Amino acid sequence: MITANTNPQIKNIIALQKKAKLRREQDLFIVEGIKMFMEAPKERIQAVYVSESFLKDKEQAEILKDIRYECVSDKVFADISDTMTPQGIMALVKQYHYTFDDIMGEGNAPLLMVLEELNDPGNLGTIVRTGEGAGVTGIVLSKGCVDIYNSKVIRATMGSIYRVPFLYVDDINSALEEIKKRCTVYAAYLDEEMNDCYSNDYKKPTAFLVGNEANGLSDEVVKLADKKIIIPMQGKVESLNASVAASILMYEAHRQRRD
Amino acid sequence: MITANTNPQIKNIIALQKKAKLRREQDLFIVEGIKMFMEAPKERIQAVYVSESFLKDKEQAEILKDIRYECVSDKVFADISDTMTPQGIMALVKQYHYTFDDIMGEGNAPLLMVLEELNDPGNLGTIVRTGEGAGVTGIVLSKGCVDIYNSKVIRATMGSIYRVPFLYVDDINSALEEIKKRCTVYAAYLDEEMNDCYSNDYKKPTAFLVGNEANGLSDEVVKLADKKIIIPMQGKVESLNASVAASILMYEAHRQRRD
Repeated sequence: MITANTNPQIKNIIALQKKAKLRREQDLFIVEGIKMFMEAPKERIQAVYVSESFLKDKEQAEILKDIRYECVSDKVFADISDTMTPQGIMALVKQYHYTFDDIMGEGNAPLLMVLEELNDPGNLGTIVRTGEGAGVTGIVLSKGCVDIYNSKVIRATMGSIYRVPFLYVDDINSALEEIKKRCTVYAAYLDEEMNDCYSNDYKKPTAFLVGNEANGLSDEVVKLADKKIIIPMQGKVESLNASVAASILMYEAHRQRRD
Repeated sequence: MITANTNPQIKNIIALQKKAKLRREQDLFIVEGIKMFMEAPKERIQAVYVSESFLKDKEQAEILKDIRYECVSDKVFADISDTMTPQGIMALVKQYHYTFDDIMGEGNAPLLMVLEELNDPGNLGTIVRTGEGAGVTGIVLSKGCVDIYNSKVIRATMGSIYRVPFLYVDDINSALEEIKKRCTVYAAYLDEEMNDCYSNDYKKPTAFLVGNEANGLSDEVVKLADKKIIIPMQGKVESLNASVAASILMYEAHRQRRD
């Protein structure tokens, strides 16, 4: 059992929790909790860490059958965990490397969510989770978006991280030029003269653009869109939460496509 | 200028930040930041506190014209603030006391969101914000929901707290009996045999029931609903985030009602 947080493996996990760059270099991300561990594709799991207390619960320990793991003291587990009340199980998982074709899906009508400079980990995780539910084929992220392998994002995805293809792009403008060859690109834009978000046919290949929480989409990106759309708002509401706006758009597409 | 956090006013604000019971007793809640201060109904503002730095910015200080306020040192402001990077302005605002009639609205077709044991402040704030945008007439909350005057809720409402009527009920079952006299009550329920959420006429008086983040709605409450509905989900998604689910339902009603 590992009982010191000076152990090199433990030091590495603590660093991996903090640094996106290190996660990229080691091609790994960290998942925590029973549900996230159970849903992780077995062939991607590189290492498993469990707390002493976790092993004492026989029923829980059952899920480790035939799996190699390291046991760590509860104190050490608290140090490596990103949560206040750790469940006592954590895994290092190999990162995904999707291609442009992957995010377009196999059918004839891709449904993409394109995110520019999205900052909040909870918002990104929620968009991935809702995206799977709504049947998006993939998510495109500008370079400046929060790292999708951030622990708070992973947790908010509730497992969808394993199943929704995504792609970080260095240059969102040239990515949009590529996407426009296959999809109609709609920019979620807060200008009241624009079209409401219900008046378009999203059964056709569709990409939705959603921007930064505070500043929305950049002018450059809006110019590249085929069409600007607005989610109509009553009262004095100036905008919706970014993950709510994305969810409403993805589910409007899902509603139209459901038959 | 107040420079000590032992000052009785300061001690009271710190206690008000922490305790819902005290907020109720004093009939007050705290709002922070320029936007929240500017949108607060003037007649409800009981006291205003600004930091030394806030006053140094002439343009900012302009918004305090003709308003009585207390200046506090930056250190004291950091103590009373609920945020990591305080904007330097805070107000004590009188609580709202809506009636059952208020939440039903003035028109013929109430649109209610009924929340059972919703725990997460961010979720509640987001529902209030999206609710205003979608045109809900009011929000009903079971006794066990997070306090709507919690600072994290207030912040997430982005000002909608001032405009959306809401009502805490001691007994959600008897409240539902009352609501059923005016509205069709739909329970958001994760059972795949149920009706999808798009197949109902929400132009009629409508109430949506959404439950606790971890456990959903209680069986008792589901039984009282007129109809169970499900937001269809693809992939392996088991549920959606509570505020996303509520938003999709409220906006589906809004979509149907928009003409």
